[in-house]
Amino acid sequence: MWKLSYGMYAVGAMDDGRTCGCIINTASQVTVEPIYITINLSKNNYTHEVLEKSGKFSLSVFSVDTDPLNITYLGFRSGRNINKFDDVEHEIFQGLPVLTSNPCSVIACEIINQIDAGTHSVFLAKVFDGKNVSDSVPMTYAYYQNVIKGMTPKNAPTFKG
Amino acid sequence: MWKLSYGMYAVGAMDDGRTCGCIINTASQVTVEPIYITINLSKNNYTHEVLEKSGKFSLSVFSVDTDPLNITYLGFRSGRNINKFDDVEHEIFQGLPVLTSNPCSVIACEIINQIDAGTHSVFLAKVFDGKNVSDSVPMTYAYYQNVIKGMTPKNAPTFKG
Repeated sequence: MWKLSYGMYAVGAMDDGRTCGCIINTASQVTVEPIYITINLSKNNYTHEVLEKSGKFSLSVFSVDTDPLNITYLGFRSGRNINKFDDVEHEIFQGLPVLTSNPCSVIACEIINQIDAGTHSVFLAKVFDGKNVSDSVPMTYAYYQNVIKGMTPKNAPTFKG
Repeated sequence: MWKLSYGMYAVGAMDDGRTCGCIINTASQVTVEPIYITINLSKNNYTHEVLEKSGKFSLSVFSVDTDPLNITYLGFRSGRNINKFDDVEHEIFQGLPVLTSNPCSVIACEIINQIDAGTHSVFLAKVFDGKNVSDSVPMTYAYYQNVIKGMTPKNAPTFKG
């Protein structure tokens, strides 16, 4: 849609001790001091419910060396009935599940504000911890679509039908 | 900062009949139907004032074939005292200034909500018109930094000091 550029990210969260999460392409830094970011999430997404309850999430920033199967496992199944991260190499960082197989970096965030945007919410969050994991090149959404030939789940902000 | 991926965009607005605008790298689609997007803008930015008054803005999506001088003209000067778009090839689209020299696309947006994020605001906006202009490849922020060797203005969400 008009060629806006995005990255690829795994959201991780904890639902009463159970890992859950999803894949998003819309994460954006808002401020530098303190560091605020926004992410956009469909209200149909189970992770949306968990973020509303728990108030925290992690972001794992995909590199081109991150296994694209992680996108299949985390992005195309619902966490309502399964523990998605069971199939994914991960660790717990600041109480939140993050990828360990070649992400560029992982970030831990606390939600400050939730903005209603119809079918989706914008979560404004403060980054309270983060670490670089690898020097690999970040995976862009364009790379995912054009090189990996990946599909877009129907709840994504950029779904074209 | 943790390798989040971004594009490059010119924001255009009208200040009582006078064109103004700036350069941003953080624009993100939120929903598909209706189409909502967010942009992040520093409160120090003159365009921030104009958006609060006028409630509307345009986005021109940079391609790799857009003249990088447009970034200098629109991104590194304040519109408080000059008409920035005077030095830039542009047209008026839906009452708003947009680039004509090889952007990928231009979009006209109406602001729905403004979210306080400390030094910056997140503007949630509804897209009410848009057109594709060229088939050129979108310019990513990484391309701007690594290929054009561009600098980051101090008000940008991604400024590193």
